[in-house]
Amino acid sequence: MGLLKAKGVVYKPVEEVDLGPDSQELYVRANVKAPRMAGFLVKVFAWFLESRIFGPFLLYILIRNNLVHKLVSNAELEESPVFVPLHQFEELNEPEVKLIDSDLSPPQRVQQAIECLPLSSPTPLDASTHSFRRWTIMDYSRAYTSGKTTPYAVAKRLIAAIRRSSTPPMDMAFFINYDVEDILRQATESTQRHQRGEPISCLDGVPVAIKDEIDCTPYPTTGGTKWLHKFRPCKADAYCVMCLRACGAILIGKTNMHELGAGTSGINPHYGATRNPYDAGKISGGSSSGSAAVVASGLCPVSLGVDGGGSVRMPAALCGVVGFKPTFGRIPHAGVLPLNWTVGMVGVLAGTIEDAFIVYAALNAQFPLNESSNTQPPKLYFPLLSASSPISNIKLARYGETIEVTIPEIEAMRLAHYVTIGTESSTSLSSYLEKLNFSQLGWDARVALSVYGSFNATEYVKAQKLRNRVMQFHKKIFTKADVIVTPTVGVTAYPIFNDAMETGELDYINGAALVRYQIAGNFLGLPTVTVPVGYDKKGLPIGLQFIGKPWSEPTLIHMAFAMQVDISHYISSMV
Amino acid sequence: MGLLKAKGVVYKPVEEVDLGPDSQELYVRANVKAPRMAGFLVKVFAWFLESRIFGPFLLYILIRNNLVHKLVSNAELEESPVFVPLHQFEELNEPEVKLIDSDLSPPQRVQQAIECLPLSSPTPLDASTHSFRRWTIMDYSRAYTSGKTTPYAVAKRLIAAIRRSSTPPMDMAFFINYDVEDILRQATESTQRHQRGEPISCLDGVPVAIKDEIDCTPYPTTGGTKWLHKFRPCKADAYCVMCLRACGAILIGKTNMHELGAGTSGINPHYGATRNPYDAGKISGGSSSGSAAVVASGLCPVSLGVDGGGSVRMPAALCGVVGFKPTFGRIPHAGVLPLNWTVGMVGVLAGTIEDAFIVYAALNAQFPLNESSNTQPPKLYFPLLSASSPISNIKLARYGETIEVTIPEIEAMRLAHYVTIGTESSTSLSSYLEKLNFSQLGWDARVALSVYGSFNATEYVKAQKLRNRVMQFHKKIFTKADVIVTPTVGVTAYPIFNDAMETGELDYINGAALVRYQIAGNFLGLPTVTVPVGYDKKGLPIGLQFIGKPWSEPTLIHMAFAMQVDISHYISSMV
Repeated sequence: MGLLKAKGVVYKPVEEVDLGPDSQELYVRANVKAPRMAGFLVKVFAWFLESRIFGPFLLYILIRNNLVHKLVSNAELEESPVFVPLHQFEELNEPEVKLIDSDLSPPQRVQQAIECLPLSSPTPLDASTHSFRRWTIMDYSRAYTSGKTTPYAVAKRLIAAIRRSSTPPMDMAFFINYDVEDILRQATESTQRHQRGEPISCLDGVPVAIKDEIDCTPYPTTGGTKWLHKFRPCKADAYCVMCLRACGAILIGKTNMHELGAGTSGINPHYGATRNPYDAGKISGGSSSGSAAVVASGLCPVSLGVDGGGSVRMPAALCGVVGFKPTFGRIPHAGVLPLNWTVGMVGVLAGTIEDAFIVYAALNAQFPLNESSNTQPPKLYFPLLSASSPISNIKLARYGETIEVTIPEIEAMRLAHYVTIGTESSTSLSSYLEKLNFSQLGWDARVALSVYGSFNATEYVKAQKLRNRVMQFHKKIFTKADVIVTPTVGVTAYPIFNDAMETGELDYINGAALVRYQIAGNFLGLPTVTVPVGYDKKGLPIGLQFIGKPWSEPTLIHMAFAMQVDISHYISSMV
Repeated sequence: MGLLKAKGVVYKPVEEVDLGPDSQELYVRANVKAPRMAGFLVKVFAWFLESRIFGPFLLYILIRNNLVHKLVSNAELEESPVFVPLHQFEELNEPEVKLIDSDLSPPQRVQQAIECLPLSSPTPLDASTHSFRRWTIMDYSRAYTSGKTTPYAVAKRLIAAIRRSSTPPMDMAFFINYDVEDILRQATESTQRHQRGEPISCLDGVPVAIKDEIDCTPYPTTGGTKWLHKFRPCKADAYCVMCLRACGAILIGKTNMHELGAGTSGINPHYGATRNPYDAGKISGGSSSGSAAVVASGLCPVSLGVDGGGSVRMPAALCGVVGFKPTFGRIPHAGVLPLNWTVGMVGVLAGTIEDAFIVYAALNAQFPLNESSNTQPPKLYFPLLSASSPISNIKLARYGETIEVTIPEIEAMRLAHYVTIGTESSTSLSSYLEKLNFSQLGWDARVALSVYGSFNATEYVKAQKLRNRVMQFHKKIFTKADVIVTPTVGVTAYPIFNDAMETGELDYINGAALVRYQIAGNFLGLPTVTVPVGYDKKGLPIGLQFIGKPWSEPTLIHMAFAMQVDISHYISSMV
C-alpha cells in the first residue's frame, strides 16, 4: 500500500503499568471514525469493500483510522501470544459453596442447585415497577405441582402470545422459528409426567427459548441467515439443549439474533429487528437479541444465548434481565455454530439470578473441551444462596471494602478481540462463503465479513500477544479484589430507525459503546454476569456487570444475588 | 487478485481415513515448483518479492504453486483449531523408568541420570569407522577425576582447534562467536574444583557449545544476523544455559546457524557456510548447523540447538550425531530468541544417546511455560539404561512387533507448519524489521521473510485446524504402537556451491526433502530423536528418527540406546 503507515504503540513492561486509581494510564476512548450509515449508503459501502480494486484500499483506511494498526498490528510488546483463554482450575475455599458430584445427571444437578436456594425469593425487579408478568422457574414448578395449571395450558397461551408478538401491529421479531406441534407435543408429555406425579425436575414443563446459533431439533440452525442451515444441517441437539431437554424443559423455538452474530443492534434484515420490550421503538441489543427480549417480556423465564463479544450480556442489560457467561470452557460448546473458537461461549439469560443459576446447574458438566484439548475439568461448586446470609468474602460498596482500580488498555483489548473474532468467524465461514451468492447476505453482514476477512496473520498473532498482556493486568487486579464491577454497557437502548430495517445499520460509535466493558469476559475467558439495577430517565433498563476470577462463578452468583435482593428491597420501599 | 483461485481440498472426516499399510491415502509428494536459485537470481527474486507492485502478485503465485492454497488456505475441514501443541501429562507405567524428584538441582538431576546408565557404554558409532576422536561426557569426567588431564589443558587444545577450524584452509564456519578469555576463566575454575576434589557434576569441565539463538553471556545473541543483538541485547543466560553452567560445564561459544533459522542448509552469508565434518564440500544442514558440526567433529561431546522445524534433528542426521527434541514444554524456553511460540524448542545434540540423556536431565525441570500458561508440569522419569536389558515394551523390527502404518496428510502438515512458523517469526521480528535497513539481511533470508509475512489471518487459523486433524491421526496410530520410525531426512548432505556463499541459496526441493519427516515433532509437539545408523555410498551419515507419544521420552531414549548398541555391535563385527 502506498499509504502512510500508522506508527505502532510501544507498550511498557507490564510491571511498570500503574493499576491504581490515580494511574496516568488514560482510558483511550474508542476512536471510531465511521459515521452511522444505513439504507443506500450501507449498500454503496459494501460494494466498495467487496471491489477488488477499491476494497483493499478502503479496508486499510478503515482499519487504520480505527486505531487497529496503532494499538495492535504495529504495536511493540514483549509478551508471548496466548491463543486460548484456558485457565488452570483452582480449588475454591469458600465456606458458602457446596461441591456437586460431577457424575450427576442434569436433573440431579438441578435438584442440588434448588437445595442451595433460599425458601422464598425476593420479588424480581420488574414485577413491581413495570407491567411485565414474569414467572420464575419455581413459579412454574409450584403451579404445575399444585395443579393450578398444566404445561399444556401454559403452552397454549404461550403459542398465542408468540403469535401475537410476531405479527402486526406488534412485530417484535423475537423468534426465527417456532413449531406449534413440537411445543404442544412436549407440553403434553410434560403434563402427563406431572399428572403421574413424576416430573423430571423443577424445569419440567418450563418454557425455554434457544438462540438460533445453537442446534435444537427439529429446527434448522440459521445463525440469523437465510442460508447457513442449507450447508450445515442441524442433526441433533447441542449439548446444552440436551441437558435442558433431559430436565423436562419445553423448548419453545429459536430466537432471533443479529445475522451471524456480526453486530450488536439485533436488527436482522431477514427476520426483523428484535424490539425492546421496554420500548418497541428501541433496539434489544445483540447478538442474542431474541433470547433477551423473550425473557424480558415474560414469555419464558430463561433462554440460552451465545456470547462471543458480549452477545449475551449486552442484550440482557438493554432488556433489563440477568445475563450470565461462565468461565471459558465451563459449558461444552458441542452443537453451537463454530463461529469462533477462543472467545465465544454459551450463556444464560433469565429474569432472576436464581433462574440463571438453576439453568447453569443443568448445563455445567465435566467434559473435555474438544478431542485434543488439555483443560483439567474443573470441579463443580454451587453457592448456597440465602436472602439473609451475610455477604462474606465479597467486597462491594456497602457489602464490604471496595478499591478503585485502573484497567489499562481496554480499548487495545477491544480491537485485539475484534481482530480475533473477525478472523475466526471468517475462517469458520470461509468454505460456505466460497459457494454463496452474496445477495443472500444482509448488507451490514457483508460489510462486517469484508472487514473480518481482511486481517493478516501477523495481526492475528499480535492480538494474541495483547491477550497475554491484558490477562496479566487482570490477574494483578485479582490479587487485590475478588470481583471487578463495571457498567455493563456504555449506552441504554437506542432507537430503531426505519432506514436500517432492510440494510441493517453501521453504527460503530454506539457499537463500541455497547461492547466497551464486555471484552474481558470473552478475550480473557473470565466469568461475568450482568444484573439489572435500575432505569435511565426514559425508563430504559441499566445493567451492572461483575467480572470474576477464573472459575469463581459461585462468588459472582453470590454477589449478583445480594445485589438483586438489595435492589428489590429498594424498589419495594419506593412503592 | 484477478488470478485463478486454487480449489481447496475437501478433507474427509478423520474416522473415515484409513491409517493401515494398504491405505489409499497417497503420500503427496512435495509439489515444489521453484527452481534452485543462488547468486544474482536470488537478488532479483528478493527485489521482486519486496516490490510493492509485483511482490503480492509473485507471492500469490508462489504460495499457490506450492499447494498452500489447495491444502491449507482454501481447504474444507471440520476440526477446531489447536493453537498450541500442549499435551496433558499421562503417568508412565514402565517398569524400567525411575521417577526423579522435581525439586532437585541440575547437578543432582545429572547425578540421578548417571545412575541410570550402564557401567560401561558401547563405543560410539564413529570412533571405529572414521577418524574423528570423539570423547563422551564420561570420558572427560573420568579423565579429569583420574588426573589424566585437566579442563584447562582441554580448553587450551580446544581453543587451538576452534582457531584452526575457523580459518583457511579449513574455514568450517562452526562458530559465530567464542571468547578465549571467557573459556579459559571457566576452565581455570573447573580445574580448581577438580583439584580440590569437588567437581560439581560429571559435566564439570566438559565443553559445551550453544546455538546462537540461545542467550549465553558474555556473548550477544545474533540469531545468525548482523543486527538482531543490537535491538535485543543478551542480558543473562537462557534457562537451559543456566542449568549447564550450574553443572560446571564450560560454555565454549556460540555456534553458527542459518540466518534467523529461516532455512535448512546452514549456509550463512555473514558467518560462512557451516561445513560438514564428513565432507567439507557438503552442507551440515540447519538451522542448528554449527551445533551439529562441532559435535560431529569431536570438538565437544554435546551442544544445544533449537528445533522449530527439524532444526536440531536435520543437521544431527546430516552430521552423523544424535539429535533429541523433547515433548513441547519439557524444557523452559526462557532466554531463547522468541522466533516462534508454538513449534520451537530447545534440543540436544550429542555424539551418543547417553550424552544427550545426561544433558536432557540437566535441563529438564518442572516449570510454568509462561505467565499465563496452564500446562500441568509433568513429572520427571528417567529410563534405566542397560546394554544388556531386554528392550521390553518396545516394538521395533528385530526387538519386537512392528506394524506398518500410513500417516496421511504429511505434506499438508508441512505446509500448515510453514504458514505457522512463518507467521510467528514474522510477528516476532516485526518491530525490528520496521527499523531495519534490509541490506543488513542476507538475500535468502529476505526472500524467506517476504513469504513469511504474506499469509492472512484466516490461513493461519486454517493451519491450526489442520494441526488438530493430524494430531488425531497420530493419536490413533499411538493406540497401536509406541513409537513411529521414519527416516530422519529425505536426502543426505548435498554440495555447497560457490554461487550460494554470498547470497545463500533457494533450494526448496532439497529443503522440502530435508523437512519432510520432521514436522510432527514441532507442529504436534511430540518428542523425537534421531540416531545415526549408517552411511550412504559416499560415506555420508544417515539418520533414523523415532517419534514418540507425548511425554514418552524414556521410551525414546530406551529405543535409541538399543539401536545404538545394536549398530555399534554391527559395526565392530565388520571391523
